[in-house]
Amino acid sequence: MKIAIAGLGTVGAETARQLIHHHDQIAQRSGMTMTVTAVSARDANRDRGFPMDGIAFEQDPVALASRDDVDVVVELIGGEDGPALDLIEAALANGKSVVTANKALLAKHGARLSAAAEDAGLALAGEASVAGGIPSLKMLREGLVANRISRISGILNGTCNYILSTMETTGRDFDDVLSEAQALGYAEADPSFDVDGIDAAHKLALLTAIGYGVVPDFDAISITGIRSVSAVDIAAAKNFGYAIRLLAIAENHQGAITASVQPTMVPLSSGLAKVDGPLNAVAIDGEPIGSVIAIGPGAGAGATASAVLADIVDVATGRAAPFFGAKADTLSTASASNTGDICRFYLRLTVYDRPGVLADVTAVLRDHNISVESLLQQGRADEGVNGTVPVVLTTHDTQSPSMLAAIEEIKKLDAVTAEPTVMVISGDAAHHDES
Amino acid sequence: MKIAIAGLGTVGAETARQLIHHHDQIAQRSGMTMTVTAVSARDANRDRGFPMDGIAFEQDPVALASRDDVDVVVELIGGEDGPALDLIEAALANGKSVVTANKALLAKHGARLSAAAEDAGLALAGEASVAGGIPSLKMLREGLVANRISRISGILNGTCNYILSTMETTGRDFDDVLSEAQALGYAEADPSFDVDGIDAAHKLALLTAIGYGVVPDFDAISITGIRSVSAVDIAAAKNFGYAIRLLAIAENHQGAITASVQPTMVPLSSGLAKVDGPLNAVAIDGEPIGSVIAIGPGAGAGATASAVLADIVDVATGRAAPFFGAKADTLSTASASNTGDICRFYLRLTVYDRPGVLADVTAVLRDHNISVESLLQQGRADEGVNGTVPVVLTTHDTQSPSMLAAIEEIKKLDAVTAEPTVMVISGDAAHHDES
Repeated sequence: MKIAIAGLGTVGAETARQLIHHHDQIAQRSGMTMTVTAVSARDANRDRGFPMDGIAFEQDPVALASRDDVDVVVELIGGEDGPALDLIEAALANGKSVVTANKALLAKHGARLSAAAEDAGLALAGEASVAGGIPSLKMLREGLVANRISRISGILNGTCNYILSTMETTGRDFDDVLSEAQALGYAEADPSFDVDGIDAAHKLALLTAIGYGVVPDFDAISITGIRSVSAVDIAAAKNFGYAIRLLAIAENHQGAITASVQPTMVPLSSGLAKVDGPLNAVAIDGEPIGSVIAIGPGAGAGATASAVLADIVDVATGRAAPFFGAKADTLSTASASNTGDICRFYLRLTVYDRPGVLADVTAVLRDHNISVESLLQQGRADEGVNGTVPVVLTTHDTQSPSMLAAIEEIKKLDAVTAEPTVMVISGDAAHHDES
Repeated sequence: MKIAIAGLGTVGAETARQLIHHHDQIAQRSGMTMTVTAVSARDANRDRGFPMDGIAFEQDPVALASRDDVDVVVELIGGEDGPALDLIEAALANGKSVVTANKALLAKHGARLSAAAEDAGLALAGEASVAGGIPSLKMLREGLVANRISRISGILNGTCNYILSTMETTGRDFDDVLSEAQALGYAEADPSFDVDGIDAAHKLALLTAIGYGVVPDFDAISITGIRSVSAVDIAAAKNFGYAIRLLAIAENHQGAITASVQPTMVPLSSGLAKVDGPLNAVAIDGEPIGSVIAIGPGAGAGATASAVLADIVDVATGRAAPFFGAKADTLSTASASNTGDICRFYLRLTVYDRPGVLADVTAVLRDHNISVESLLQQGRADEGVNGTVPVVLTTHDTQSPSMLAAIEEIKKLDAVTAEPTVMVISGDAAHHDES
């Protein structure tokens, strides 16, 4: 099996090193001999920890797709269009199977590319695109193939999880921890894709498509990032018995699929609250399985290469399933809809510290039939900014539309000085006590 | 794809119901039509929640193997020899692939049967044999195929985990909780296979074989069950910051594989301590992945059927990997060896409550270079049995042979009245903080 690797960043170089340095073990496990025959990267001459002897170098990655000495193309360039897409299309057109870690590309073009691969009798594999080293797509697509999936929930972005769990353990604020994460290499110089929830939503689009047999639909996902999560929220959550995690959740309510990525309060005693640092977690609820959760490294060269290599072996041995499990031409179009979920909410307001403010806020909530579970005013104005203080409260079960309407009214109150922060409180995410 | 099911207990009946009632979904996901054409069970006439119209019934399960209208035989009879083995051998001899949930049979005959299947171009699949609904074999064999596995650890027996976690939450003693588990159906009338660690060891033998590419070797596993775990141990563990779990662990020390099943103290903050009730967990450490853990239902009709059905789909679509990942004829013979692990120990002694006893015990430990970390004498003799009291202690890092030698001497002390209970304290099982 002759392999071309496009993109020799940390993951591409690690994939090549593993294929070369551990050639014999991979051959013994898979029954196949794997050879890296060609690569493409920006810089031909950098030492990446493996010998380039006998490996062809192409300046243009797309040229890999037409080489006679390549059976499988591994795309690790990134970007949802551009050379990554050109390469994958050319590879499939030239009869070569494709392995990719490119979640954005698969979320946008996956249904079309998978159909093209299936029509040509080729494989399109992308385990590394979701949850790094955790074999989450394989688990959902193959291990749980016979289940009616009711809920997919996950911590799918290691950068956000590192930031939130560090805020939790240190009490520091978002900007401060983000800077540190950037210095440590856990966050990009431009962190928007991660902290605004885009990356997690790309991954959720793929999990949703596989779990529910629908065409991936990134635009149907309601996305809130973690920039608005403050040290006050983290402390209040802990006070109420919760940790804050950026949860990606896709639920199936009698055929209507709702998908969201948002900071969520999860019980401190739950499995997801223990998922710390740059770890990822994927929990699947379905019938007849009940509930399964897998936790592991969501990023990093080694973990991602592990998933890329697993795909290469599946492709080489002819055991790769269609990317979405079901053939791409059988996927239905998701009927994304907000069904007006009922859940508990957390609300943080910034208000002037003066008499009557709490009465005004609670009156609005009462008028929308929202029952307050607990309310905390933290500190006094002389400790706060410009005479303001944070007020945090949690509600009993509330209809989402009621909550949104109440927040719109609360924002109009004179004493409310900043955009309220609202979070869902999860009572049951990834708790397994019932099984 | 025509399927025969041998054994219509809870798992077999649930597998048939799923195949029949959810026929269309399974067909859409797998691209294959699955039909149950024949079954075998003790009682032909019982209503099992699916129509028997058009399904042939065989009194003798082995007769399923020679029917022309059967492509795949699903063995759910149980037993490591007898009709289950006869059926699987006959099926493979007659060109039919096999799906089984039979861990004892696979641990004993799996290498031979897998080789027979591979020689005949057939599949032998057994996901349901380990950790119930968790796709643990698929994760290890396919998802982590490119890793050098250093450690496999798991909670592999739901009955033991139910008993231990119930003892932990209620403070009740082993016999009491076992009786309740039997009444609730979580434990068999004869619980030996579960509580003596045999069942977990069968599963560990299979995980070890797949992870390290060796022939499964049940006899090389050091096995201690949970009968000797008392309420005193559970309370002492909690006091020291630990929970007690029956851990199955297989480690690779430079090619020497050690495998054990034993009650182990795991930190209360660790992932494994949160695995409660009848849940199972499988944690895999390797390079380059780091560490991955999967948690889910380890038993029950629905969860086990989920795994059986996943195997049926893999077999039907031609995507089933060799059972051990590597072809059976490439498996090496395990060089099982006790390398004299260094770890911390917990020790509970039952001693007469009189002066000098602790001095005698600690002198023996000192003579074996064993450093005591903490020591508790619980209660006074007037609360105990026959003037005896429990003494519990934990050690700093100690060589296993030193500990065993010290225990032999301690047993000879006049004041020591019962067999000491000794447990390993795990500092790092399934903690993921480093990744």
